[in-house]
Amino acid sequence: MSATPSPARRTGGRSAAVLAAVRSAVEELVQERGSGQVTIPMVAERAGVNPTSIYRRWGDAPSMINDLATYRISPDRPLPDTGDLREDLTRWAQEIIEHFRQPAAAALLRGGAAAAGAGDSDCLRNRRAEATLLIERDGGEVPVEEVIDHVIAPIVYRVLFRPWTLDDELAPALVGRLFAGR
Amino acid sequence: MSATPSPARRTGGRSAAVLAAVRSAVEELVQERGSGQVTIPMVAERAGVNPTSIYRRWGDAPSMINDLATYRISPDRPLPDTGDLREDLTRWAQEIIEHFRQPAAAALLRGGAAAAGAGDSDCLRNRRAEATLLIERDGGEVPVEEVIDHVIAPIVYRVLFRPWTLDDELAPALVGRLFAGR
Repeated sequence: MSATPSPARRTGGRSAAVLAAVRSAVEELVQERGSGQVTIPMVAERAGVNPTSIYRRWGDAPSMINDLATYRISPDRPLPDTGDLREDLTRWAQEIIEHFRQPAAAALLRGGAAAAGAGDSDCLRNRRAEATLLIERDGGEVPVEEVIDHVIAPIVYRVLFRPWTLDDELAPALVGRLFAGR
Repeated sequence: MSATPSPARRTGGRSAAVLAAVRSAVEELVQERGSGQVTIPMVAERAGVNPTSIYRRWGDAPSMINDLATYRISPDRPLPDTGDLREDLTRWAQEIIEHFRQPAAAALLRGGAAAAGAGDSDCLRNRRAEATLLIERDGGEVPVEEVIDHVIAPIVYRVLFRPWTLDDELAPALVGRLFAGR
């Protein structure tokens, strides 16, 4: 597997450290109190950062939670690159499933769902960008929307409502249905 | 289309009126304040019912919101019965999509997602029961889990994160993928 650069760029140095501290604080507080009770001053205190820098970045607590909800899967990690799209998508889905088996990650996604609204508030946009990259590298014959509907959506549904069903058969089963009859 | 009895029974008379009042109050309050800020006393006051009867039924606000999140699609409505499973599932999916195009219904589902947790908290269990009924009537060759993963999950994902994509092509496209290669 070789490393493929992902669409997002790494944030370096001090701002990366601030972001990591904010992320941990949000994860802890969402688990402790539920997403509706988490405020920016609370996060700033827990993270040891200035509230102003959080307000500047996100504006309000729901936007912050929504934005962080799936950010923990590093946008800089190497994506699978086996030369076979079906295998790549299966590995990629498996990685996302493993991530969301962590209760802290699931709690944050529930917070992201609660904070999502009518605007462009898709906290899973990084996953969409990754799916696009995997597909385009392969020639683009599988529509990205179908990967979202038939691989990402079932994982997200299970994370939110039925986390105990996130087993190791899931990724190959979902990708199998995506490729059935193609 | 003939009416098919669904698995849930109708609650009659006074308790039905109380439930309807509670439901409307929860829908309004979740939209006004966000699901994390809604309390049982607040709902009781808005609905004009005794808080005790709400506590007795649901125990706490997250359970109440979770339970009501998709209850508004009446479990007593007739299910499609065209004699063709693919057509039935498409009509059934279309009905769910139309329901969740209402902002109040989407807000409640976001609240249900936020309130879901590690226990058996699937606020979409009525949809699961309906899918089971449609499939079993047809001979049970499509697994219910696949209907959940490939029809319900993509609708829920879009309701939560991308409500503006709930168009009229969605139901036939999702059910088409479910049947591809069978």
